[in-house]
Amino acid sequence: MFKAIVSADTLRTTLDSVSVLVDECKIHLNEDGLAIRAVDPANVGMVDLELSADAFESYEADGGLIGVNLSRLEDIAGMADAGQLVHLELDEETRKLHIRIDGLEYTLALIDPDSIRQEPDLPDLDLSAHVVVEGADIHRAVKAADMVSDHIALGVDETEETFYVDAEGDTDDVHLELGREDLIDLEVGPAHSLFSLDYLKDMNKAIPKDAEVRMELGEEFPVKMHFDIAEGQGTVTFMLAPRIQSD
Amino acid sequence: MFKAIVSADTLRTTLDSVSVLVDECKIHLNEDGLAIRAVDPANVGMVDLELSADAFESYEADGGLIGVNLSRLEDIAGMADAGQLVHLELDEETRKLHIRIDGLEYTLALIDPDSIRQEPDLPDLDLSAHVVVEGADIHRAVKAADMVSDHIALGVDETEETFYVDAEGDTDDVHLELGREDLIDLEVGPAHSLFSLDYLKDMNKAIPKDAEVRMELGEEFPVKMHFDIAEGQGTVTFMLAPRIQSD
Amino acid sequence: MFKAIVSADTLRTTLDSVSVLVDECKIHLNEDGLAIRAVDPANVGMVDLELSADAFESYEADGGLIGVNLSRLEDIAGMADAGQLVHLELDEETRKLHIRIDGLEYTLALIDPDSIRQEPDLPDLDLSAHVVVEGADIHRAVKAADMVSDHIALGVDETEETFYVDAEGDTDDVHLELGREDLIDLEVGPAHSLFSLDYLKDMNKAIPKDAEVRMELGEEFPVKMHFDIAEGQGTVTFMLAPRIQSD
Repeated sequence: MFKAIVSADTLRTTLDSVSVLVDECKIHLNEDGLAIRAVDPANVGMVDLELSADAFESYEADGGLIGVNLSRLEDIAGMADAGQLVHLELDEETRKLHIRIDGLEYTLALIDPDSIRQEPDLPDLDLSAHVVVEGADIHRAVKAADMVSDHIALGVDETEETFYVDAEGDTDDVHLELGREDLIDLEVGPAHSLFSLDYLKDMNKAIPKDAEVRMELGEEFPVKMHFDIAEGQGTVTFMLAPRIQSD
Repeated sequence: MFKAIVSADTLRTTLDSVSVLVDECKIHLNEDGLAIRAVDPANVGMVDLELSADAFESYEADGGLIGVNLSRLEDIAGMADAGQLVHLELDEETRKLHIRIDGLEYTLALIDPDSIRQEPDLPDLDLSAHVVVEGADIHRAVKAADMVSDHIALGVDETEETFYVDAEGDTDDVHLELGREDLIDLEVGPAHSLFSLDYLKDMNKAIPKDAEVRMELGEEFPVKMHFDIAEGQGTVTFMLAPRIQSD
Repeated sequence: MFKAIVSADTLRTTLDSVSVLVDECKIHLNEDGLAIRAVDPANVGMVDLELSADAFESYEADGGLIGVNLSRLEDIAGMADAGQLVHLELDEETRKLHIRIDGLEYTLALIDPDSIRQEPDLPDLDLSAHVVVEGADIHRAVKAADMVSDHIALGVDETEETFYVDAEGDTDDVHLELGREDLIDLEVGPAHSLFSLDYLKDMNKAIPKDAEVRMELGEEFPVKMHFDIAEGQGTVTFMLAPRIQSD
């Protein structure tokens, strides 16, 4: 059983965080909130999302699991005005989700969860460098790197105590360096890894510009990016696998 | 003879109401205002528009008839700022319309009215259900139905005293129900008909969101939609033929 | 040696004035400011731009010459917010331009100036009609003419004391007439020439709507258009060759 009321804004932010990586996903309807984990078909980017029951106007669930088409659900959420409430109710028998926005009712056919790609385990990694940065700075780095290259290096300079972003093109280069005064927080440690810019661009779309993003970095290791959604009532973790350095 | 001055806003609203259905139309330059009637090439959607001489800053005409290319005329009207005045004057000899906006003069070649599709008669129908609804609600219904289907059913539930919109897709359904408290007015009567969504989407483009739209509905009958333009100095009626129910 | 700091706005306006005609250009890094002259591949449109050292926050140069890819440089300038400062520094050894915006550094490979199309001489012409007009009026004339034709005639009516724009299409015509009361200034003289609308549309993109544009016109002669950029610290001259009248 699942029955919940949530603001259209919160629902959209939640869906966007996952839809940048996958088209369909499983949603765990836990007693204390929603949980989604997904990995893209190439096993390069992962997302782990939790949205507490407190993020909802009202929330009742008992541990079910549903499979949804994310773009379909995003279109429906897009019908609501920013402040409007979205009513969700699962019909266990027909396996359909009833979505109500004001007088409008949308009946969404669910997807068999078994037909959806298996959920990944986000590995526990010992990443020694921690950087807390504004979403706007990630946005700026990704946009600049995209002018010259398909790859982007993220790293920490232990001596200079800076977080840096590097992109090397055929003729032009981009370099962004943020010191302690530009960062919200920094714990230095050996860190330098190369990533596919395409994935980082997709993840960046889901990161609010005013979010505090906590990044965990290592030497030729994945990067983890954590940030809050729904005014702190939800958390998102992106994990992106590194590319092997070609030079 | 025809000579008139009209605000760019009023001219644009008038043209838009017709151009959603046809590319060319005849305009009757009556003594008391303009009149346009047109039907789309498939004979499914019709429009009947009247714009009173009072909607103009100044208006002189003696019953002529001209044929115009609507998108051309819309482009010209689009050159004016919202509040600006558009001067129109017919040159009977050359059969050209002189359009002046500030110092800019556009000479528009007219189309021979005989070469334009014949004007339809909008039939008098005995449609027993009357619904007065905000344009914004039609907009919402059309947008939601478009997510799941190419057709849309409009009807009145006589017992529940509601106006409803239904769209059934292959897997998902949309249902919008508006009761007396959501409607401006409602006269119940037997009403349920299926329409092509494409036509309703086009007509919806010409319906202002804040307009009061009076709908007349029946059982497997056309729908008529009436609304005012030009601050009540003009009226538009759309009529849409029903699709035959396939189920 | 070249080292300068300039507002993103000023840099963008400067680049836009040239990029409407050419993809690459030579920039003279004179002691008292930048200078750019360029002609389009068909030898029809020319631009002559000067940006004084006073337009910069700081400026040091000793007469060098660099070749740049304009769209690349525009993309980089586009990374900055409107008020932000852009730091430019030439590395003579590597022939690269270092561009810094806040913590972001972009290293731009320059182009060998010898590989760029030769700079034109803007001929001294004895154009007897002078018109000073708002950029917004040029914008309006170009947009209206574009509805009916590929060509546009610019001229001065010496008797009526007006500046006029004419465009003749297959069926429709556009005519814009501006008298002394609509113009900032007018010196009458014999003037009527036909121009390619494509070029004028491109030049128009670089003319601010609130700019005072001084036009010099003659009989079947090129038109020269002068306007200021960077709050009067820079000047742009466009010159456009006439089309031969076909009628």
